[in-house]
Amino acid sequence: MNQQVDWKKFLIPYENAVEELKVKFKSIRSELRTIGEYSPIEFVTGRVKKVSSILEKAKKLDVEIDNIEEGIEDIAGIRIMCQFVEDIYTVVDYIRERDGNDLEIVYEKDYINNFKPSGYRSYHIVIRYPIQTAMGPKKILAEVQIRTLAMNFWGTIEHSLRYKYKHNIPEHINERLIKAADAAFMLDKEMSKIRHEIRQAQKMFEIKSNT
Amino acid sequence: MNQQVDWKKFLIPYENAVEELKVKFKSIRSELRTIGEYSPIEFVTGRVKKVSSILEKAKKLDVEIDNIEEGIEDIAGIRIMCQFVEDIYTVVDYIRERDGNDLEIVYEKDYINNFKPSGYRSYHIVIRYPIQTAMGPKKILAEVQIRTLAMNFWGTIEHSLRYKYKHNIPEHINERLIKAADAAFMLDKEMSKIRHEIRQAQKMFEIKSNT
Amino acid sequence: MNQQVDWKKFLIPYENAVEELKVKFKSIRSELRTIGEYSPIEFVTGRVKKVSSILEKAKKLDVEIDNIEEGIEDIAGIRIMCQFVEDIYTVVDYIRERDGNDLEIVYEKDYINNFKPSGYRSYHIVIRYPIQTAMGPKKILAEVQIRTLAMNFWGTIEHSLRYKYKHNIPEHINERLIKAADAAFMLDKEMSKIRHEIRQAQKMFEIKSNT
Amino acid sequence: MNQQVDWKKFLIPYENAVEELKVKFKSIRSELRTIGEYSPIEFVTGRVKKVSSILEKAKKLDVEIDNIEEGIEDIAGIRIMCQFVEDIYTVVDYIRERDGNDLEIVYEKDYINNFKPSGYRSYHIVIRYPIQTAMGPKKILAEVQIRTLAMNFWGTIEHSLRYKYKHNIPEHINERLIKAADAAFMLDKEMSKIRHEIRQAQKMFEIKSNT
Repeated sequence: MNQQVDWKKFLIPYENAVEELKVKFKSIRSELRTIGEYSPIEFVTGRVKKVSSILEKAKKLDVEIDNIEEGIEDIAGIRIMCQFVEDIYTVVDYIRERDGNDLEIVYEKDYINNFKPSGYRSYHIVIRYPIQTAMGPKKILAEVQIRTLAMNFWGTIEHSLRYKYKHNIPEHINERLIKAADAAFMLDKEMSKIRHEIRQAQKMFEIKSNT
Repeated sequence: MNQQVDWKKFLIPYENAVEELKVKFKSIRSELRTIGEYSPIEFVTGRVKKVSSILEKAKKLDVEIDNIEEGIEDIAGIRIMCQFVEDIYTVVDYIRERDGNDLEIVYEKDYINNFKPSGYRSYHIVIRYPIQTAMGPKKILAEVQIRTLAMNFWGTIEHSLRYKYKHNIPEHINERLIKAADAAFMLDKEMSKIRHEIRQAQKMFEIKSNT
Repeated sequence: MNQQVDWKKFLIPYENAVEELKVKFKSIRSELRTIGEYSPIEFVTGRVKKVSSILEKAKKLDVEIDNIEEGIEDIAGIRIMCQFVEDIYTVVDYIRERDGNDLEIVYEKDYINNFKPSGYRSYHIVIRYPIQTAMGPKKILAEVQIRTLAMNFWGTIEHSLRYKYKHNIPEHINERLIKAADAAFMLDKEMSKIRHEIRQAQKMFEIKSNT
Repeated sequence: MNQQVDWKKFLIPYENAVEELKVKFKSIRSELRTIGEYSPIEFVTGRVKKVSSILEKAKKLDVEIDNIEEGIEDIAGIRIMCQFVEDIYTVVDYIRERDGNDLEIVYEKDYINNFKPSGYRSYHIVIRYPIQTAMGPKKILAEVQIRTLAMNFWGTIEHSLRYKYKHNIPEHINERLIKAADAAFMLDKEMSKIRHEIRQAQKMFEIKSNT
């Protein structure tokens, strides 16, 4: 594939998909806030994978260049950040309800109940998303990652280390990373407990008010 | 309908539709520029009609408040600006190709070949657009106006005068407006002629090159 | 100068300046609309000149590469669009008032009262603008172009033709361009007359109201 | 002060200041990334305080309505998020270097080395910022908060609880909040250790390379 012209063309539907999906997920947040309800979405980011990273991943996964549209699922990537672990599942349900409407779910991976050995936690949904380009309609794959702010904090740093050390993170730094993953997990747990206690307090208050 | 809370809720799908449609039409432009082709779209704007204007229009058109979703077609409005009159029809064709995909065309009005007595020129397409809200999927009406920069310039000023004089524009100002509409029309015609001559020159050049 | 790394670094303060100046001029508009007053600014755009265009202009103007910061004044460019010709001078006055505050005026060029032989009309102000970079403070040159929508329409097309024909626009197209410039000028004149008549009508109305 | 018209006018320079300061701090990040250097700034947000919150704070601090410009320092608020605690001080130094250029530092408060009894950690800098409005130049107060992502996560939740319980957070929830603050603190500490070990490893590598 020609590096200069064709990659640009190849990435166009992915760029459009990222823009549209960002607008769509952000609007959930503004919508709920408009009607005075709690939003499980704190903020949304998106990116198209760099050509160098696509090529690197294709090599690693043994995907041929003619097959990257199907073989690499995260060329278009959307990341949704939540305050509480419970919010993640609310967002997942929300996406499931749209399955067959403006997107199709290909598969889901729950790295929250089954976190990776590295300590990585996040919920991934790979979707197929229809896009209209100047060259006609097309369906592309996109990956939606849903995570708490604490998971994201840890994930961002782990990613930059993995990149820096070209996937050979030294043992003593790896140990630190796992300790940090524990601290992030603890933080999420404490936050959920706070949330739970507030809910309980609200219910008790409502029961009292009704008697 | 409750002025405070319900209007906000009522307008949510329209706001989402405007955001999504702006992203979609803008991406056509960036797409074509990316592959080095001419874009018939110069720029795109969008707006949701103000509650006061919705109520005013409902009264004027004798639309009951329970029927404004169907009775008022431009609560969500998209405006696409083109450089040349010919570009307008390219954009119209482009929207027609999407009919049945991510939008449905309800009807079209060609105020360019049949301009209004006021001098107003523009191409209108009313579409039905599917939107996913936190409360589920929904289809809403939206109006897409396609026009040249000169038409837009004139239209903007005519609109603000109509607003200022509450639809009773004095005769001498009306005459001026019609003169200005003529000047705008002349400008578009000269621009199209330039475009045509360039095309001819290019064809002659290509014929020469091939012989 | 190294094409890859140094140009990127060189352009950073210009990119920052364009972002800041866009925010500043746009805020005038939202400010005036907030307090219910007419805004002489319709919209604002900005761009940093492409490296290829900088090099081309440096060659044409015989500016040495070490002197482009001073020799090329429009690396950072801001364009302010107005509805009426009169608005342009309101914006000019507004910028003059800021001279010595957050910007310095280097010189002004009035291509509206003295339009170029090509038919080009626009008001240019070259400013010196202080910018804070991660490498410390710096003052850069920027060009602010103020024009009506009709001037802009014509200017955009003339620019793309000049680019297409590499500054050798054929005579018959040139003639068309001048006719189009006349039509644009006529349009602006009609618009100004409308504006003037409205003002007169308002004054008469106010006099009547006070007696 | 008239609720409807004057508050809008009063808040204009604060809105402009927030927009300008967001652009300025965001550009530091893009600038450093452009030249391939680490950015101590992860992301930047900003907001103008709501009228209801200004009035509430004025009452609490016993500030008279004519004195809120001087008496309430966070009507314009900027928040800068960092990955590591160390980054916060890099950002602080950066702001100090601009003191007297495009902003003036009024005072600083280090709630990181001296965190509040609630568990709140953050670095605050109150600045005086010059702004150009359509009504002329003006200097306003703004508060810049600099914090890690973990501090921000905790702070966001504490703020919404404080708001929900109208400053009377129940004891058992308060205990949870302090535990969560500890977890956030631990997370930051582990992250800093990772950073430190990487730096050490880099230095050793450089020493080896030089011998």
